[in-house]
Amino acid sequence: MRIRNVKNAKETLLAYPQYVITQPEKYRGKWQSLFPYPQPLHVEIGMGKGRFIREMAKMHPNINYIGIERMDSIVYRALEKQILDPVPNLMLIQVDASTMKELFKRDEISRIYLNFSDPWPKVRHEKRRLTHESFLSQYKHVLNPQGEIHFKTDNRGLFEYSLSSMSRFKMAFYNISLDLHRDEPKDNVRTEYEEKFSPFGPIYRLEAAFQRREDNETTSDL
Amino acid sequence: MRIRNVKNAKETLLAYPQYVITQPEKYRGKWQSLFPYPQPLHVEIGMGKGRFIREMAKMHPNINYIGIERMDSIVYRALEKQILDPVPNLMLIQVDASTMKELFKRDEISRIYLNFSDPWPKVRHEKRRLTHESFLSQYKHVLNPQGEIHFKTDNRGLFEYSLSSMSRFKMAFYNISLDLHRDEPKDNVRTEYEEKFSPFGPIYRLEAAFQRREDNETTSDL
Repeated sequence: MRIRNVKNAKETLLAYPQYVITQPEKYRGKWQSLFPYPQPLHVEIGMGKGRFIREMAKMHPNINYIGIERMDSIVYRALEKQILDPVPNLMLIQVDASTMKELFKRDEISRIYLNFSDPWPKVRHEKRRLTHESFLSQYKHVLNPQGEIHFKTDNRGLFEYSLSSMSRFKMAFYNISLDLHRDEPKDNVRTEYEEKFSPFGPIYRLEAAFQRREDNETTSDL
Repeated sequence: MRIRNVKNAKETLLAYPQYVITQPEKYRGKWQSLFPYPQPLHVEIGMGKGRFIREMAKMHPNINYIGIERMDSIVYRALEKQILDPVPNLMLIQVDASTMKELFKRDEISRIYLNFSDPWPKVRHEKRRLTHESFLSQYKHVLNPQGEIHFKTDNRGLFEYSLSSMSRFKMAFYNISLDLHRDEPKDNVRTEYEEKFSPFGPIYRLEAAFQRREDNETTSDL
């Protein structure tokens, strides 16, 4: 996402610790203490300007949401909305998501959203893709056993990569769509990017879980 | 598949009851009695000329295979190979697969293969697609609880239809590929059709199971 640099973005973030956490390591294992009620925790990695996570938080008051974004000038955009119209079950974090295990305790999260992540199409950048095995291994650690990853993208290459990366991790998939908007589910919340790029090609979507299926051993399942 | 009509195909099938079953209802619940050993049963629906199922049977002597095909002149082609080079853990059935529940008992099968099934692209023919809910419901009945469906096709429309039809059935997916031959698994056995049409576009593949994931109730999984 291209965005003009916001002057003093970082300073503004620091001025609103009730909405934005800039030193998230401090809250590892204690995220529930920042919300009005302890409730299942859903986290979006790469929230951008935050439209998706805000909508979700409004629609699901019985879930606590955290939006993570690396760029302070983008977090600033999400913060603006939160200042004007605070959503109590939403917190923002400004940090690089590659440190997920340092931000969350084992099993602390119930769901992770990955929406239109950077595809990093060059092979030498594979490790930066948010569905690279190094990320999956961190997600597995911080998600509880029934936890899920909900992923959507308009980039077929990233989708295929993610299917094979997650398959290598023995993940199970649910509710896969290769053209989400053709028969769009009523509860689909569109991101800013999704709204803008939808006319140019299909949106791919999947849900995935780490739980292994029972091994269907060919010699013992007669 | 276009194939010239083979004269007296049906008569030939009837002459080889040790290889081809033409009244399969009689063996419902008793399929194991036709094989040298009772072993897990894998069934291909729409085997065509039988290359895939024969190769599989040779590669996996510890599994019993059944190839189903409706057209007698096509079953005849598979029978020719079986006469020349009998594979003991393979039986052929000439029948319409829409009667699966009449052919197999509950839980009798461990795996179903659907390879390059007719896409039936017209909406009014939707019910004929082998991943229509009426078929899925029969598969669910005859597959054991750990049973799987392995499906491949070069038809993107059929693949998308199957993903959404199976998702409505709450099925879980594994090992999905949107381009099977780009990084072809060593154990992939190509069908005749697959070999011929591979150069013209990607082969889609998935594995699916009926077992439901644990419901991730948003209010109780904290």
